[in-house]
Amino acid sequence: MKEIKAEILAIGDELLYGQIIDTNSLWISQVLTLIGVSVIHRTTIGDDEASILSAFRAAEHRADIILITGGLGPTSDDLTKPLLAKYFNCELSLVPEALEAVSAFFSKRGRELTELNKLQAHLPTKCQYVPNLMGTAPGMWFEENGALWMSMPGVPHEMKHLMESFVLPQIKERFKLPVIYHKIIQTTGIGESWLSDLIHDWEKSLPAHIKLAYLPSLGQVRLRLTAFGKNLDTLQEEVNHLITKLLPSIEKYVFGYDDETLEEAVGNLLLNRKSTLAIAESCTGGYVSHMITRIPGSSAYYQGSIIPYHNGFKTTLLEVNQHTLDLSGAVSEETVIEMAQNVRMKFGADFGLASSGIAGPDGGTAAKPVGTVWLACAYNDKVVTKKLQLASDRMLNIQISALSALNLLRNCILEINE
Amino acid sequence: MKEIKAEILAIGDELLYGQIIDTNSLWISQVLTLIGVSVIHRTTIGDDEASILSAFRAAEHRADIILITGGLGPTSDDLTKPLLAKYFNCELSLVPEALEAVSAFFSKRGRELTELNKLQAHLPTKCQYVPNLMGTAPGMWFEENGALWMSMPGVPHEMKHLMESFVLPQIKERFKLPVIYHKIIQTTGIGESWLSDLIHDWEKSLPAHIKLAYLPSLGQVRLRLTAFGKNLDTLQEEVNHLITKLLPSIEKYVFGYDDETLEEAVGNLLLNRKSTLAIAESCTGGYVSHMITRIPGSSAYYQGSIIPYHNGFKTTLLEVNQHTLDLSGAVSEETVIEMAQNVRMKFGADFGLASSGIAGPDGGTAAKPVGTVWLACAYNDKVVTKKLQLASDRMLNIQISALSALNLLRNCILEINE
Repeated sequence: MKEIKAEILAIGDELLYGQIIDTNSLWISQVLTLIGVSVIHRTTIGDDEASILSAFRAAEHRADIILITGGLGPTSDDLTKPLLAKYFNCELSLVPEALEAVSAFFSKRGRELTELNKLQAHLPTKCQYVPNLMGTAPGMWFEENGALWMSMPGVPHEMKHLMESFVLPQIKERFKLPVIYHKIIQTTGIGESWLSDLIHDWEKSLPAHIKLAYLPSLGQVRLRLTAFGKNLDTLQEEVNHLITKLLPSIEKYVFGYDDETLEEAVGNLLLNRKSTLAIAESCTGGYVSHMITRIPGSSAYYQGSIIPYHNGFKTTLLEVNQHTLDLSGAVSEETVIEMAQNVRMKFGADFGLASSGIAGPDGGTAAKPVGTVWLACAYNDKVVTKKLQLASDRMLNIQISALSALNLLRNCILEINE
Repeated sequence: MKEIKAEILAIGDELLYGQIIDTNSLWISQVLTLIGVSVIHRTTIGDDEASILSAFRAAEHRADIILITGGLGPTSDDLTKPLLAKYFNCELSLVPEALEAVSAFFSKRGRELTELNKLQAHLPTKCQYVPNLMGTAPGMWFEENGALWMSMPGVPHEMKHLMESFVLPQIKERFKLPVIYHKIIQTTGIGESWLSDLIHDWEKSLPAHIKLAYLPSLGQVRLRLTAFGKNLDTLQEEVNHLITKLLPSIEKYVFGYDDETLEEAVGNLLLNRKSTLAIAESCTGGYVSHMITRIPGSSAYYQGSIIPYHNGFKTTLLEVNQHTLDLSGAVSEETVIEMAQNVRMKFGADFGLASSGIAGPDGGTAAKPVGTVWLACAYNDKVVTKKLQLASDRMLNIQISALSALNLLRNCILEINE
C-alpha cells in the first residue's frame, strides 16, 4: 500500500521568535498519525514572501498532503492567502458565501464588519471555500500540482475545527490508508543503552512491519512499537504477543504502558491493594509528595508527609535517634531507614518512603559528595534502601531522586504482591 | 549590519508522530532572538536518511548557523552522527577525550560502560568534540560548506547545557551582532489586561527603539523591554530610567527582574532579614515546599513542612483544634489559620505558611466547589489569609495556589520591612 505523506507548514514570525509554542503542528501530527498518514516533514517559517514560496515548492515535491497554519489574519503582515494565489497563479475574488459567514460571525457578536474583515471573504479563485464556524478567516482547500493543500488559521480551536469538520474526512475519503497500531512500554531504572543490550535479540527478531523506537526522558526510557498493516485486531494481537515475549527480560523495569506515568502506576498499585503511603522527604524537599498528589484521587492512599529539612527536626518531629545522626550523619543509610520506619508509624501507613541526600550544588564533602542520595522504603517488618550517586545539578538531582524513590516503592509493592 | 541567519533542525520520528512536543526548538529560538540572531527556518524531520541529508542541504543554503537536535542516542535508530560524517564526507574515529568523558560519566554513577556507550565516543573526523557534562552523547561542532553546524542531543537539559557552555559564546565571538539590551520586569498578582491599563500612558511614551512585550505565564506576567542601539551602557541607562518612571504605578506587583523567580525573590527576602519559614500544605501537596527547596541555599531559611493530607493528621500532627475542623471544615479560613500558626510554632520559624483547598477534579460541594482554596501566613502575632476560587484543573489549581501562597508570604515580609 502506498504511503501517504503529509507536510505541515506553520507560518508566523511569532513562532520563530519563540514567543508562542507551536501546539498546532503537534496536534496535527498526532491526528494524522492516528489515521495512518505519515507526517514526513514539519516546517516553521516567518511572515516572509520568499520563505513561504520556497516552502510551498519544497513541500509539494515531498508530500501528498500539505497542511498550512497561520498567516491568515486581516492585517498586512499576513501573507499566506495572497501568496497561495500567486503560487497557484490565480486572482483573489469575493466569495459571497464567505462574506455572509464573516458578517454573520460579527453580527452574532454585536460587532460591525470593518473593511479589513470584508477582505477576508476574498479568496483565491482556484480554492474551495471551507467555512470556519469558529472565526473569521475561512479555510482554503486546493488540489494543485499533484497535492492536496489546506490553509487554516493559526488559532488552535479554529484549526482543529477545520481539521475535524473537513480535512480529516477528506483525507480518509481520498486515500486508502494503512492501519497503524502504536503501543508504548514505559520503563524506568535502566538506561537506554543497557535496555537496548537486554532486548537486542528480541529487537532483531521484530518483523519488518513493526518498528521499535527508544524514547528516553529524565530517568525513564519509553519503548514505542509501531505496527503497520491492514487489520487493527491482528496488529494488536501481534504487538501484544511480542510484548509477552519481551517482558520476562525487562519486567522489573516496566511500570506501565502508553501514557501512564510512574506516579499513576504506583498510585494504582496502592489502590488495588488498599494500601496507604506516608513520606519523609529531606533532599527531595516535597517533590515526591507533589508527584504523588498531582494524581487525581491520591487522597485515597496518600496519608501525608513530614519534611524535616533542617536536621534538628529529623529527631524532634521524626524521632530519628540522635545517636544515629551523630554516628552516621543525616545523609546515611541508617538515618534514612529510621526516617522511613518512623514516618510510616506516625501516619499509621502501610508504606513509609524516605529520602535524604545532598541535592547540591553545595554542601558536599569528600566522603559524601554532592549528588549522594539515600532512599528507603519501609513496609511490614522490612525496609529496603537504595543509594544514588548523582551529579551536581540540583533540580535534576531532586527529580531523579524522586523518580527513584517512587520506583523503589513500586518494587516493594510488587514484591509483596508476588 | 549583516543579518545573521540561523536554522534549527529537530530530528526524531517521535516528533513527527506527535509523541513529544519540541520544546528544544522553542527554547533555541528564544535564546538566539535574545542575542540578535534571526531564526529564519525551523525544520522537523524523522529518523530517515534521505530526509536528514536533504534537510542538511536545504539548511546550508539558507543559514549561517545550523543547530541540530536529536538522533544522537547510542541505538541504531539514531542517524544524525553517521549522516553528518557521510554529508561532510569523513570517517568516524574514536576521540579518546570523549571516551574518557563517557567512562567518567558512568563510573561516577557506579555503572559500567557498554560497547554501545563506547561507540558514542566515535565522532566524525571533521568535527570539533564538545563535552556534554550532562549526558553521554557529545556535542559536535562543524565549520563546513560556509556554515557553522552544531549537533546536540534531544534531551532538553543536555541541549541547553551545550548551547550555554559552547554554542552561544561561539556565536557571539564569531559574528558582529546588533547591540540589544533586554530587561524583564517580573510581576504577579495582576492580569495582563489590568496591567496594560495601568501602564498605558507609560507604554505610549516609549521611544521607537525600545519595544515592550507582555509575556504572560501561569499566575505571572513578565514585561520585557528590548532596546536596540549601538552602545550597551546607553541602552541600560535608558531602560533603567524608564523603569524608575514605571515602578510607582505597579510596584506592589513587581517581585523581581530578568530570570528571578518568585521563590528566589521570597528566598532572598528571608535571607536578608535572617528569617525562617515553615510550611503546612494540604491541597498543594508538597508543591510549595518543592518551589522553596529547588532554590540552592534554601536550607538557610527553610525549616521544613508538614503535609497532613488526610484530615485526621491536621489534628494529630498539626494540632488543629478538632472543634475548628468540625465547625468550619478542613477547607476554611479558621482551619488554615491554625495550620499556619501551628506549623510556625512546631518548627520555631518566623513565618508559617499554610494551604487548604479542593484541588479537584472531584471533592467539591455546593458550598465549597472544586477550586476553593484558603491560604494563610502567620508571623509575629499576625496572620493574613487569602481565599482563591479557581477552576477544575487539578494541576493548575496546585500551581496557582502555590504561587499565590508565595506571593502572600512575600507581601507579609514586605509589610514588616516597611
